[in-house]
Amino acid sequence: MVLTLKDFLNVLETVASARWAEPWDNPGLQIGSPNQEIHKIFSSLDPTLKALMSASKAGAQLLFTHHPLIFKPLSRLQTDVFPGNIIAEAARRGIAVVAAHTNLDAAPGGINDILAGLLDLTDMEVLKPVDTADGAGLGRIGDLPGPTSLSAVAEAVRKVMGTADIRVVGAPDLLIRRIAVVGGSGGSLVGLAYERSADLLLTGDIGHHVALEAEALGIALIDAGHFCSEKTAFNLFAGNLETLLRSKGWETVVEIDEGEGDPLRICDGG
Amino acid sequence: MVLTLKDFLNVLETVASARWAEPWDNPGLQIGSPNQEIHKIFSSLDPTLKALMSASKAGAQLLFTHHPLIFKPLSRLQTDVFPGNIIAEAARRGIAVVAAHTNLDAAPGGINDILAGLLDLTDMEVLKPVDTADGAGLGRIGDLPGPTSLSAVAEAVRKVMGTADIRVVGAPDLLIRRIAVVGGSGGSLVGLAYERSADLLLTGDIGHHVALEAEALGIALIDAGHFCSEKTAFNLFAGNLETLLRSKGWETVVEIDEGEGDPLRICDGG
Amino acid sequence: MVLTLKDFLNVLETVASARWAEPWDNPGLQIGSPNQEIHKIFSSLDPTLKALMSASKAGAQLLFTHHPLIFKPLSRLQTDVFPGNIIAEAARRGIAVVAAHTNLDAAPGGINDILAGLLDLTDMEVLKPVDTADGAGLGRIGDLPGPTSLSAVAEAVRKVMGTADIRVVGAPDLLIRRIAVVGGSGGSLVGLAYERSADLLLTGDIGHHVALEAEALGIALIDAGHFCSEKTAFNLFAGNLETLLRSKGWETVVEIDEGEGDPLRICDGG
Amino acid sequence: MVLTLKDFLNVLETVASARWAEPWDNPGLQIGSPNQEIHKIFSSLDPTLKALMSASKAGAQLLFTHHPLIFKPLSRLQTDVFPGNIIAEAARRGIAVVAAHTNLDAAPGGINDILAGLLDLTDMEVLKPVDTADGAGLGRIGDLPGPTSLSAVAEAVRKVMGTADIRVVGAPDLLIRRIAVVGGSGGSLVGLAYERSADLLLTGDIGHHVALEAEALGIALIDAGHFCSEKTAFNLFAGNLETLLRSKGWETVVEIDEGEGDPLRICDGG
Amino acid sequence: MVLTLKDFLNVLETVASARWAEPWDNPGLQIGSPNQEIHKIFSSLDPTLKALMSASKAGAQLLFTHHPLIFKPLSRLQTDVFPGNIIAEAARRGIAVVAAHTNLDAAPGGINDILAGLLDLTDMEVLKPVDTADGAGLGRIGDLPGPTSLSAVAEAVRKVMGTADIRVVGAPDLLIRRIAVVGGSGGSLVGLAYERSADLLLTGDIGHHVALEAEALGIALIDAGHFCSEKTAFNLFAGNLETLLRSKGWETVVEIDEGEGDPLRICDGG
Amino acid sequence: MVLTLKDFLNVLETVASARWAEPWDNPGLQIGSPNQEIHKIFSSLDPTLKALMSASKAGAQLLFTHHPLIFKPLSRLQTDVFPGNIIAEAARRGIAVVAAHTNLDAAPGGINDILAGLLDLTDMEVLKPVDTADGAGLGRIGDLPGPTSLSAVAEAVRKVMGTADIRVVGAPDLLIRRIAVVGGSGGSLVGLAYERSADLLLTGDIGHHVALEAEALGIALIDAGHFCSEKTAFNLFAGNLETLLRSKGWETVVEIDEGEGDPLRICDGG
Repeated sequence: MVLTLKDFLNVLETVASARWAEPWDNPGLQIGSPNQEIHKIFSSLDPTLKALMSASKAGAQLLFTHHPLIFKPLSRLQTDVFPGNIIAEAARRGIAVVAAHTNLDAAPGGINDILAGLLDLTDMEVLKPVDTADGAGLGRIGDLPGPTSLSAVAEAVRKVMGTADIRVVGAPDLLIRRIAVVGGSGGSLVGLAYERSADLLLTGDIGHHVALEAEALGIALIDAGHFCSEKTAFNLFAGNLETLLRSKGWETVVEIDEGEGDPLRICDGG
Repeated sequence: MVLTLKDFLNVLETVASARWAEPWDNPGLQIGSPNQEIHKIFSSLDPTLKALMSASKAGAQLLFTHHPLIFKPLSRLQTDVFPGNIIAEAARRGIAVVAAHTNLDAAPGGINDILAGLLDLTDMEVLKPVDTADGAGLGRIGDLPGPTSLSAVAEAVRKVMGTADIRVVGAPDLLIRRIAVVGGSGGSLVGLAYERSADLLLTGDIGHHVALEAEALGIALIDAGHFCSEKTAFNLFAGNLETLLRSKGWETVVEIDEGEGDPLRICDGG
Repeated sequence: MVLTLKDFLNVLETVASARWAEPWDNPGLQIGSPNQEIHKIFSSLDPTLKALMSASKAGAQLLFTHHPLIFKPLSRLQTDVFPGNIIAEAARRGIAVVAAHTNLDAAPGGINDILAGLLDLTDMEVLKPVDTADGAGLGRIGDLPGPTSLSAVAEAVRKVMGTADIRVVGAPDLLIRRIAVVGGSGGSLVGLAYERSADLLLTGDIGHHVALEAEALGIALIDAGHFCSEKTAFNLFAGNLETLLRSKGWETVVEIDEGEGDPLRICDGG
Repeated sequence: MVLTLKDFLNVLETVASARWAEPWDNPGLQIGSPNQEIHKIFSSLDPTLKALMSASKAGAQLLFTHHPLIFKPLSRLQTDVFPGNIIAEAARRGIAVVAAHTNLDAAPGGINDILAGLLDLTDMEVLKPVDTADGAGLGRIGDLPGPTSLSAVAEAVRKVMGTADIRVVGAPDLLIRRIAVVGGSGGSLVGLAYERSADLLLTGDIGHHVALEAEALGIALIDAGHFCSEKTAFNLFAGNLETLLRSKGWETVVEIDEGEGDPLRICDGG
Repeated sequence: MVLTLKDFLNVLETVASARWAEPWDNPGLQIGSPNQEIHKIFSSLDPTLKALMSASKAGAQLLFTHHPLIFKPLSRLQTDVFPGNIIAEAARRGIAVVAAHTNLDAAPGGINDILAGLLDLTDMEVLKPVDTADGAGLGRIGDLPGPTSLSAVAEAVRKVMGTADIRVVGAPDLLIRRIAVVGGSGGSLVGLAYERSADLLLTGDIGHHVALEAEALGIALIDAGHFCSEKTAFNLFAGNLETLLRSKGWETVVEIDEGEGDPLRICDGG
Repeated sequence: MVLTLKDFLNVLETVASARWAEPWDNPGLQIGSPNQEIHKIFSSLDPTLKALMSASKAGAQLLFTHHPLIFKPLSRLQTDVFPGNIIAEAARRGIAVVAAHTNLDAAPGGINDILAGLLDLTDMEVLKPVDTADGAGLGRIGDLPGPTSLSAVAEAVRKVMGTADIRVVGAPDLLIRRIAVVGGSGGSLVGLAYERSADLLLTGDIGHHVALEAEALGIALIDAGHFCSEKTAFNLFAGNLETLLRSKGWETVVEIDEGEGDPLRICDGG
């Protein structure tokens, strides 16, 4: 039995339902035809031209990404610049593109659940539940096995996520018991994390005003980077996806994009 | 010297400027890369799949149409249904698509000026000027050479536009002196045509409530069909375009789509 | 027992409830006093001055129409032009005006149910149900007794609706099994009719873009005209209304306006 | 030469232009036909049923009022309640209704200029000019001939406007030099009057929060009642109107409604 | 046990819940810290500077008012003008400010229930229930013990509310059986009061257009003034509050502001 | 002559006019009275409680900051949390707070001009001019003295701004000729910087999607941190302010807050 794009979208809906996505988001089908056959899936965090070319080289029929290719609805397709260049190239090569973004962040077993698991959190709950009341929602919150200093937590995050560039708000020896985790850009949830008694919010893309807000509230922050806070978890999810597809009788292969990196790197200074 | 898509868009702007388009419209580039070379242009009223295939067969690099391919901004490109199928096919074949719609209707020398000329109207004015005050606007209004019965005007329209299906509001022997002309769907301008002393509004896509409104106002209507009221004029415009390009030193060929027809045809009745 | 206008509005609510109307619509009382007595009702599709005069001549106290007299709320009543002239004349003659429009289209037993019945459709369902979940909604969809060519269906429509001007999209020998029916202007429902597996949408006021959309989807269209697609059904409804009123003990007479015609007529050409 | 309703509206536009009206207002024609002849005008502050009947008894063809008959656009005309009853009665009796409201308040020579003149103000300016920059605007501001106690100003207002019910904010012996005047409901302009150095704002319909605001700012208020603050001035304007019409050659008579009174009267208390 | 501001807000929520407030209103905490201790409460209708100073002189830690101190959200705090001056003074003196406004008007046992009780109304109902369906809502409606003339009702209102300035719409000998009561500014509810069969609406801040509307509908009005229609009832509520606090074990004292008066007073005329 | 707060606001308007601020911003007076005297100004980037206390300790009457204290208009002032705690403390201590934010960023001689000067840029222009056409606008763009590698530019930025945590997008040996500079959060201007031919955008608060966009466009980024990209320039501006005040005859002292630091610090890792 060969997987079609429609089959894939149906399976994805069961684990990362579109109804869990944020209102401004555009996950799901980006380009493709429901009836095309998918023998191989190539999985990248970002739908870059490099990722599409790697998918093509790998012989994939589907590029599966975390971030959508189309964010702002398109009134024209200029094929020499982003995202028109990628869309046109995908059309030419017959490669479909599908994204699972905030719906996957929010999903039970999704990005944030995986992240929380990597940190060994217990008594885990959803940080900001969505209305649909099926265990989905923004971020997770849970307890560490025991009180740990902020600098030790930062060190653990560095190892788990393989990131060189960790930034923090809070005293190094502050004791952390309860952590809120939001992969990607979660700074706007700092107030909620505080209200729900987190000692620390772990996320990416933290700006100055969020850092000030955290300092005023007395809650610690770890900025592990948007890319690093998501890449490890997304890879794990994509790996599980192959297992899931096989359990349903499809022999589809999922290949992880090992070549992509954080476009923003720390400067050595030297 | 070879015409690029960017050159073509620049020339088009001089004769059908984007600033004359209605706010809801989306004329101009639909798909394509500014730097691609255009040796041949294929011109159809509607950007159908059939039109794209004819353009491809004709060896054209650009499909030039009256109606835009993308009306509603796209959040995804489903490549087996309209308009995704046409966009994907255009990407695969490297054919650009450009539309000149309400900007061309409004342009001096555009669709409505051509239509008014075909009816030999004199003392012609713009029916509803646009703010930019450069002779552009919605529809045209002008005088017939002499008083003519509504049925005779209808017969003349039938010949000029080659349409079998003419519908009218008003008594056949009503004398017509002054005509408002709006190619396409112009029924909403019936009140304005009346205020500006037209005896007749010639347009397409007339619905029941507009017919009632005309009857209440005592102004005649001729519905020549949306397709037929535009196709003849658009063909003439496309022909002129080749002349214009050549006058600027480009040897681009413009081929008219002779194969397209009105999708809505009168039923013989038997 | 003499029917009052208030009684009539109450009865009408039971068969064409205001809660079934489209949000933009304005059915119900147009002008009149709830306490006035109604001995005779005159029923016309459109609230024209001619219809009001006919109602007056017929000795009616109520003009009952399909289309509302007031569409756009009035900030002033200019009594020499539509609709001020009709409102003032109705005030002078003491004739009330009441409309049943999209609420009657949507009603069980309303315009579209009557239309579908005239075409002998079976397994009939509502095309687009309204939220109130009581069997009301936009349009109807159902099966023909057997596969019939598009040209034969068009011929049947012509006979049932008494219309000379039928227009179609689709090949004459296309076999039709399942039909969606929307009296009046139903072109915007062509996509829904396709999704619900109709082979044909029968409606009025079809414009060029709807015809193109139907062609792209591969669904046939019959445009029977807005007037003709509603007049026959509305007459039948008005006739039933008299029976309904009598069954409740009111001796009110309902007289059908036999003199009104489609303002938009096909032009003979020859 | 007989005045038509259209002539009257044209003359009115020259002294109380529609472009001076507030955005929420609906002055001008309320009901009537531009071509009807006007031999006699009956002038009332409010378009009540009593005023219409008085106009009819007086043999007038036009009821001219300060307040509009139609404030909220009408979706239906229920002829047994306000304002449908008055509109229907006007239609039956062939009496037109025209209002000059905030456009007349704002006009040079309008309600507020007349009011300021009655108080012998000098160095008069517009309190809040409108954009059109032709001397029109909300309210007037000017100086008393000399410093006068608040109680003496109140007494003068009582005499000029013939009102029994005067209410004030401010100490009786406060000296007033500069007065802002706004006929009708002008409480929202108390802050502006203060900024423009008025010692007192004279208006009607003052509520508690405006009184508190005045007290906090240290500006005095006189509430002369909405009716009384406008009736005297409107009568003077209507009288002038007859003179104006005659100067242009029309022999139209203007009769003032002497019978109308303030619906809100002070309770004797006993 | 010492009452904290947080305790007070919690108690207030039980008798005047924030969910009963109008959407435009801003009741509750105006300024203060939840943890501060409240030994004495000073209660004024309006949060004026005079009221704050009286509260300070009385040794209160909380000024409790009917009208909010902050109506329009503040982008800056200019400390020499209202309301910045009062807010800054409250901050300096450590006095919190809390308001119970439309939530208290609507509350069971709130302002309007107290007012209706003062008039001995029976069979009392909420005039306009709020959605929360717990007996709260705008205004009250009920029956007098027996038919009473409008002038007698006005006289009774004068005594109960201690107001000198009563104004009425309606004939003095009109018999009143059923009264709608809305403390403060309730003129916009005159139509609803009429529909619910009230013979009289008692409220404050009545303007000319509401008076005309009442006259057209044939319902009587009594304008007892915004201040007077609320002050008596608010004092009674504040007194009850002390009892309520004591019943829960707090020894907090509530002192009524006896010094505040209506800023708008009737002018003697004489 | 002693400077008043009003004088200070007037002087500030001449160098950082409110009309240059972004629509969402709230610069200018945050709390204070125009007439209060200012002998000493304390200048901090952020209006934190620590900054207010330092200002108090320094004996200042005015805390002058870059970021506003009130961002979201306040409906209540909870005095134990930000920003209510700072506002109440300022009221108690009589310290005014004034901010110059996006108006100062945009000002000629403002934050971005100072930044560009620190980098020795030549041929400097405004990156995104504001409408007022007086040399103000968002960001600056200019040329380096000669082509310089990205890593060398990063090193220079590190020294000038004294920041330990520099992050970049782009190859270290990329040659940079033209730089766009936006203090604070300027990532949304990356597209504009590219269109205006910048090789590099220097700003703070760069998130993942902006980094991807830069990579797709082929423009380099340096994220010098929001705090560090503004603090040096703001200090220089505040120093100039003292000179400016003295030149106008005021002996006001301006003290720079040397104690504040970036709340977000790089984590040592090791």
